[in-house]
Amino acid sequence: MGASRARPDTPFMGPRTQDTRLWHPFSDMATVRDRELVITRGEDVWLWDEDGNRYLDAFASLWYTNIGHGRSEIADAVAAQMRELEAFTIFFDYANRPALELAELLAELSPMPGSRVMLTPGGGSEAIDTAVKMARRYWFEMGQPDRRHVVSRAHAYHGSNGIGTGIGGIDANRDGWGAALPETSRVGHDSVEALEGEIARVGADRIAAFVCEPVMGAGGVHPPPPGYIEGVAALCRAHDILFVCDSVICGFGRLGTWFGIERWNVEPDVITFAKGVTSGYLPLGGVLFGARVCEPFWSEPGRMVRHGYTFAGHPACCTAALANIAVIDREGLLDRALEIERDLTAVLRPLEDHPAVAEVRSGTGAMAAVELVEEGGAPGLMMRMRAAGVLVRASSPTAVAVCPPLTITREQVDTIGEAFAHSLGA
Amino acid sequence: MGASRARPDTPFMGPRTQDTRLWHPFSDMATVRDRELVITRGEDVWLWDEDGNRYLDAFASLWYTNIGHGRSEIADAVAAQMRELEAFTIFFDYANRPALELAELLAELSPMPGSRVMLTPGGGSEAIDTAVKMARRYWFEMGQPDRRHVVSRAHAYHGSNGIGTGIGGIDANRDGWGAALPETSRVGHDSVEALEGEIARVGADRIAAFVCEPVMGAGGVHPPPPGYIEGVAALCRAHDILFVCDSVICGFGRLGTWFGIERWNVEPDVITFAKGVTSGYLPLGGVLFGARVCEPFWSEPGRMVRHGYTFAGHPACCTAALANIAVIDREGLLDRALEIERDLTAVLRPLEDHPAVAEVRSGTGAMAAVELVEEGGAPGLMMRMRAAGVLVRASSPTAVAVCPPLTITREQVDTIGEAFAHSLGA
Ligand SMILES: Cc1ncc(COP(=O)(O)O)c(C=O)c1O
Ligand SMILES: Cc1ncc(COP(=O)(O)O)c(C=O)c1O
Repeated sequence: MGASRARPDTPFMGPRTQDTRLWHPFSDMATVRDRELVITRGEDVWLWDEDGNRYLDAFASLWYTNIGHGRSEIADAVAAQMRELEAFTIFFDYANRPALELAELLAELSPMPGSRVMLTPGGGSEAIDTAVKMARRYWFEMGQPDRRHVVSRAHAYHGSNGIGTGIGGIDANRDGWGAALPETSRVGHDSVEALEGEIARVGADRIAAFVCEPVMGAGGVHPPPPGYIEGVAALCRAHDILFVCDSVICGFGRLGTWFGIERWNVEPDVITFAKGVTSGYLPLGGVLFGARVCEPFWSEPGRMVRHGYTFAGHPACCTAALANIAVIDREGLLDRALEIERDLTAVLRPLEDHPAVAEVRSGTGAMAAVELVEEGGAPGLMMRMRAAGVLVRASSPTAVAVCPPLTITREQVDTIGEAFAHSLGA
Repeated sequence: MGASRARPDTPFMGPRTQDTRLWHPFSDMATVRDRELVITRGEDVWLWDEDGNRYLDAFASLWYTNIGHGRSEIADAVAAQMRELEAFTIFFDYANRPALELAELLAELSPMPGSRVMLTPGGGSEAIDTAVKMARRYWFEMGQPDRRHVVSRAHAYHGSNGIGTGIGGIDANRDGWGAALPETSRVGHDSVEALEGEIARVGADRIAAFVCEPVMGAGGVHPPPPGYIEGVAALCRAHDILFVCDSVICGFGRLGTWFGIERWNVEPDVITFAKGVTSGYLPLGGVLFGARVCEPFWSEPGRMVRHGYTFAGHPACCTAALANIAVIDREGLLDRALEIERDLTAVLRPLEDHPAVAEVRSGTGAMAAVELVEEGGAPGLMMRMRAAGVLVRASSPTAVAVCPPLTITREQVDTIGEAFAHSLGA
C-alpha cells in the first residue's frame, strides 16, 4: 500500500495551499480554494503528490487511465506528430492522416458495420450533444420531424454541455441551471417495462432516441439486470427509435470489449465514446454512426451538417488514441479486464459482511461500487482511503466506486480490498 | 506564392481518394467522402499537402494558429510533461501544476480583477455552454431565479453544443436540430437600440446575460460600429445583466491584446476563450469569471457546482497553452497584430474597386473579410485561391475571411492580396 499521508489539520483535505485561481469541476470552491492536492507524477497504477506521497490510482483518474500512467511511447508519438503537423482543421474537405486512420480503425473495431465517425476534441460531453443533435437531425431528414423526444435513464450521467445536462438522470446535476431542454424524459434505470410505458405515453412517432450506458458508471456502477439491454434494444427496434449507446466509460476495454456493448447480442444505431479511447493521454471523444444513420447524409449531395468543433480530429490527439489502442491490443488488456472483473468480485464482495456496507456491485467489467448503509458516508470513506494511499471515487453520497487501470495486478486489487477493510473500521 | 495545384477533374475539390470513415465537421459528406485534401506538414505560415503542394495558411487553420505552425519547443514541452504526468483529474480538490499556473496566468492577464478560471478541454463550445450555465446559476444563487433569459446577436457563432446552438445567430446553423433552447433571443448585431428594445420587451429582471463577440468572426468578420461595445456594456451594467464576452476568436493577440475586449473601455463579467490560447497546438478553452460572479461560490461553503469535463485542466494541454503564451509574449505578437491589422487594410481595401467586391471589412485586429456581390460566390473564390496556393475561409455564402498567423510578414500579406486579385478575375 502507498505511504500514508498525515493530515494534521483535517482528515478530509490536504494542507493549506495558496488561494487558487483554478475553478475545479464538481467542487465547492469555498472549501477547496486553499486545500488542493497537487499530483505531480504517474507510473502505471501509481501516482505521487508534490510531497512525495504515493497513491494507488484505483479509479483510473476518472474512469479513463485504462493502460496506466506514464507510457513514454505515447509521449514520443505525440511529440513526433506535433513536429510534423501540430494541427490543421478537418472542417470541409481538409483531413490529416492520424484522424483518417483513427476513424478507419474505430469503424473497423465497432460492432456497427459500415459506420462513420465524428470526432470531438473535448470528450464525452461533446460526443453526447453531437449524438443527440444528429439523432434528431436524422429524423428531420427522413421526413419525420416530430421525432424529437429523447428518453434517457434515472441516475445516468451524460456530460455537462447543454444537451447532456438536459438528458442527465442525476437530479442534483440538473438543478439551478434554468429551464431544462424541451422534449426529454427519464425512465427507471433497470426496467424494460418503464421504457415501454414511456414509449406508450409519449408516442413512438415522437421519440427520436433512447440513450443508454451499458453499465452505468458515474451514477454508481449499476450493471444492467439480466435481459435489460436486450429488452430495451428490442423495444427501440420495434418502435423504430434510435438506440444510442453511451460507451464513454464502458469502451476501450473496461467491459472486456472495444465498446462494451458487444457483451450483449444487440446492435446500437449510435455509439458515443471518450475517456479510454486515449486513456486520457490527450483529450478526445467521438460518435460512431451506423450505416442506417449515415445513409441520408452520405448518399446524395445537399445535406450539409452544420455542426462541429474547431479542434475535432486534432492530429496529436488522434495520434495518442492510435498509440493507446495499440497498447490495449498488444498487451491483451481486453482479456485482462475480464480477469480484473473476477478479481474485483472476489476481493470486494466479502465486504458485504461488514455492517457499514449495504451492497457491493460488480461482475460486469473492471469496475465495482461499494454501497454504504450510512447516508452521506461515501466522501468520508473516500478520504480515509486516500489517507491510506488508495484513491477511489465517491460517485454518490452513499457509493464508492472502483475502476482501476487495466494493468492492475491481483496483488494490487488486494491492496484496494485491504484499504476498504481498514477504512471502513472494525 | 505557393506552387499551384492542378485539379483535373474539378476546380473545386482534390483528386479522388479512398472512401473515408471520417465524418468532417460542417461538411456535405456525400460530396467530401472521397475528395479529401490531406495536409501533412506545417511550418510558420506554410502548409504542405500529401502531394507536396505548398499553401499559405491565410486563415490560421480556423482562426487559431496565432504563433504559426511547427514550433518544436511546444512539442518538447508537451512531451516532457507527458513523461512526468500525462493526466490526472482536477475534479474535487485534485490539481496539477500546469493547470494551476495557467489559471494564475490567465487571471493575471485578464481585464477582470480577481477573476477565476474554469478550463474546458474541447475549446470554445464547451466554454460557451459553461458560461451560460454559470450565468443562470449565478442568478439562481443570488435569489433571482427568474433571470434565465440569454440575449445574443444575429450572425453570432457560439459553438455546436446544446446551448451554443441555442444562442447561435446564424440561421442555417439552427435549423433541423429539433426544439430550440428555451428563453433565448437574438438582436441585430450592430445596434445598441436593438438590445435596449429587447431588454424592454423581455424585462431586465428576466435576463441573465448578454453574449457578445468583440469582433464577430465566423459570422463574417464584423467589427463593431463605433460606440457599440461601450453602449451594450453600459446597458448591461444599468440593468444588472451579466456581460459575457466571447473572445474565442478575438483573444490571444488577434485584436492586439490578450482578450480582445481591452480595446474598449469596458469591463465584462465573464470571458470565454479557446483557439489562440494554445494556437491549436493542443485543444483547450475556458471561461474567466470576474470577482462578482465568483463571490457567491467562493465565499461560503455549501455551493458545490456540479458541472465540468473529464479532461478539464489536462496537464499536457495546459503546458501547450503556457508555452504558446510565452511565445506570444516573447515575440511581441500583440503589437505585431496591430501592424498586420494595418497591412491587411492597406492590401485588401483596394479590392473594393473590383466590380465583384461589395465591401472589404477590416481595421479591428489581424482579420478581414472580402464581401462579394454575387450570392453564393464565396466557396468558389475560396477554391480558386486554394488552387493559387492561398487558404482562406468562406465564412458565409458571400464573404471570404482572412485571419493569418500573427507571424505573417508584409510580403506574405501582399501574396494574399495578389491571390485575391488573381482569383477574382479581370
Ligand atoms: C457515460 C458518460 N457519458 C458522458 C460523459 C461526459 O464525458 P466528458 O466528461 O469527457 O465530457 C461521462 C463522463 O463521466 C460519462 O461517464
Ligand atoms: C466566437 C466563437 N465562440 C465559440 C466557438 C466554438 O469554439 P470551438 O469550435 O472551439 O468549440 C467559436 C468557433 O469558431 C467561435 O468563433
